[in-house]
Amino acid sequence: MTEQSFRILDEGLDAVEGFFTRGIHCGIKKSKKDLAIILSRVPAAAAGVFTRNTVIAAPVIITRENVRRGGTLQAIVVNSGIANACTGTRGIDDARFMAQVVADEFSLEDPSLVGVASTGVIGDFLPLGKIEKGVRLIHKHIYEKSGDHSAANAIMTTDTFPKERSVSLTIEGKEVRLAAIAKGAGMIRPDMATMLSFLITDAAVDSETLQDILRESVDESFNRVTVDGDTSTNDMVLMLANGESGISTINRDHPEFFKLKEALRWICVELAKDLVRDGEGATKFINVVVEGAASREDARKAAYTVAESMLVKTAIFGEDPNWGRVMAALGRSGASFKPERVSFSVNGTPFVRNGIGASEKGRATLFDAVRTKTIDMVIQLGAGEESFNVWTCDLSLDYVKINSLYS
Amino acid sequence: MTEQSFRILDEGLDAVEGFFTRGIHCGIKKSKKDLAIILSRVPAAAAGVFTRNTVIAAPVIITRENVRRGGTLQAIVVNSGIANACTGTRGIDDARFMAQVVADEFSLEDPSLVGVASTGVIGDFLPLGKIEKGVRLIHKHIYEKSGDHSAANAIMTTDTFPKERSVSLTIEGKEVRLAAIAKGAGMIRPDMATMLSFLITDAAVDSETLQDILRESVDESFNRVTVDGDTSTNDMVLMLANGESGISTINRDHPEFFKLKEALRWICVELAKDLVRDGEGATKFINVVVEGAASREDARKAAYTVAESMLVKTAIFGEDPNWGRVMAALGRSGASFKPERVSFSVNGTPFVRNGIGASEKGRATLFDAVRTKTIDMVIQLGAGEESFNVWTCDLSLDYVKINSLYS
Repeated sequence: MTEQSFRILDEGLDAVEGFFTRGIHCGIKKSKKDLAIILSRVPAAAAGVFTRNTVIAAPVIITRENVRRGGTLQAIVVNSGIANACTGTRGIDDARFMAQVVADEFSLEDPSLVGVASTGVIGDFLPLGKIEKGVRLIHKHIYEKSGDHSAANAIMTTDTFPKERSVSLTIEGKEVRLAAIAKGAGMIRPDMATMLSFLITDAAVDSETLQDILRESVDESFNRVTVDGDTSTNDMVLMLANGESGISTINRDHPEFFKLKEALRWICVELAKDLVRDGEGATKFINVVVEGAASREDARKAAYTVAESMLVKTAIFGEDPNWGRVMAALGRSGASFKPERVSFSVNGTPFVRNGIGASEKGRATLFDAVRTKTIDMVIQLGAGEESFNVWTCDLSLDYVKINSLYS
Repeated sequence: MTEQSFRILDEGLDAVEGFFTRGIHCGIKKSKKDLAIILSRVPAAAAGVFTRNTVIAAPVIITRENVRRGGTLQAIVVNSGIANACTGTRGIDDARFMAQVVADEFSLEDPSLVGVASTGVIGDFLPLGKIEKGVRLIHKHIYEKSGDHSAANAIMTTDTFPKERSVSLTIEGKEVRLAAIAKGAGMIRPDMATMLSFLITDAAVDSETLQDILRESVDESFNRVTVDGDTSTNDMVLMLANGESGISTINRDHPEFFKLKEALRWICVELAKDLVRDGEGATKFINVVVEGAASREDARKAAYTVAESMLVKTAIFGEDPNWGRVMAALGRSGASFKPERVSFSVNGTPFVRNGIGASEKGRATLFDAVRTKTIDMVIQLGAGEESFNVWTCDLSLDYVKINSLYS
């Protein structure tokens, strides 16, 4: 582990120069916070990664349009409780209305400077009057830096804790801050509820560079739990860089570019792990590592098939070292390998060697190995050099309870 | 519905001329039946459909070899409790030993006339002594037609009821009988436990024809719940036709060929539905029908993605008409369609029309529609002419309980 070129802060979004954020209850949900705004003093370079689901919610359509048009945003408005998905042209109008209300309230030059995000039940229409009043209420309080993590709270649905991270780094001798919030995915892929994350920095970053490093960081973090092409209707990661730290504009040629990239990657990885830790009903964090695959695609398929196997997930919930379920999952993953070359271990304890049980240490050892909160599963396919890892959680009774009574 | 050309019988396997079957407890499991033999008076034409998992259990390797070599079997020996999978060369020897013991005990010409099947925990070795004694015990009782469904019982693992069906039909003016047993799949795809089915008939059927009609029937039945390529290490469907009814050998040109095919298809479909009804913890039978897809592959992908969605399955368990989860599943299925053309209904009640909620009858109607034991979900993609249907069950609290405490 090399020394980190950044320092972890406690302030969350409040740490970042020239940004103002606030979350409140506006009445979409019964009593919990359900509306948040992130506002930059000045228009900021913006980048976004969006769902690849064929069924795309209205706010995603509008925000993607706004980000791709100018690469600039000045505000983000997010509601929880209703997803504004499968709402047809009325939904599109409603998302545009949300942008317009924020632009008007904060005197922004154009509604296209506003990113809009929603999460919650699909199919219902947004209560626009409540949102309009909510935006006004936020305006009253947004410039107070309260440190109450209200924005992180307001974007939650079935999440049990707010997810917020912030760091400080030094570029050109000046302090630069980077912070982010995220909300969780239900069970995380393949059936994720909406995953949202909003990142802000007072670094100045060239739009194209911002888009590149955001995409790369998302690939190594959120996509380890959600993966492209298997996302929900509303998934969105947005990043704003407003330059208020006073440094010159960063691109790939900047000598301290790597510092920003490293900090961004760290934040995304931590938030992605938070999402898994807060998976609905989760009692265990599982890291599935596949090594020795013939191709990266094989490694990916094998890792996901194991990580998504309901039989593997329930076995881990029950602390049952039933490794046959892992072998069966590998066998149907589509990855090419010879069963007699497969080995794997859990938390360092060998479970399988050359395709058969590695039971020399006795069955009790296997039971001990699956008793921890964090399960590190390392699978060696013995078919090549490629590897891939995925983070997931176990499947518990609470998962079924939460999801059978959601809407 | 045209009139059926067969008559349903109650006798199960006992109905079929020249076959003897018995299931007993030999000691692999603590107290439940765990060993069964199906024996034909004479060598019978044999056909088989086997798992496509890369990790193939020893008995599947041996039986596939035996069926493909001569297209003839005279006996099937099946144990439950231990899968004999991931057991290396010792497992292969053990499966061959089981065939040898049965051949010796029943004085068969060659051990290659014996099909061997196993189901249970992966990784453990079989107690051969117990199996040998069990085969001898079966020999003592196999010629009594007891009607106790002991074979169907002996192949069960987490199944809650035995699955056995039999029919009578008339070919060339003579009575022909067809019967079968099956054991269930845990949750049914994508994480199925082993699925086994054994079919016997006293019709005389040409080996090639038998293989063809078995494959076709499996495609329209068991593969609607398990699908090729997504099977467990031990899955196997075997069919024996011993000709003891005295009819001439049936091939596709036989004028009453269709009768046999129709009866076979019916038995396979009923058993496949039994598997779903007995899915671990299942409280609902769900038929997912996708129509109007651009291709059959699109229809298949869409149907499976909906049927396997944990969020859809938990919503149905909770009798929650949360149709957004169906839309989100369709959107990530990979099927190509325009969301604004999608419609779907549950038990005839419209839920979605042209991509948005069909709520004209009010929300209470939707709740009523998901309250039944059988859920018929018809999805119209509006993208073409192709269709596909899949049978599945809901995801209940009991599923997690059963599978977190299995081994």
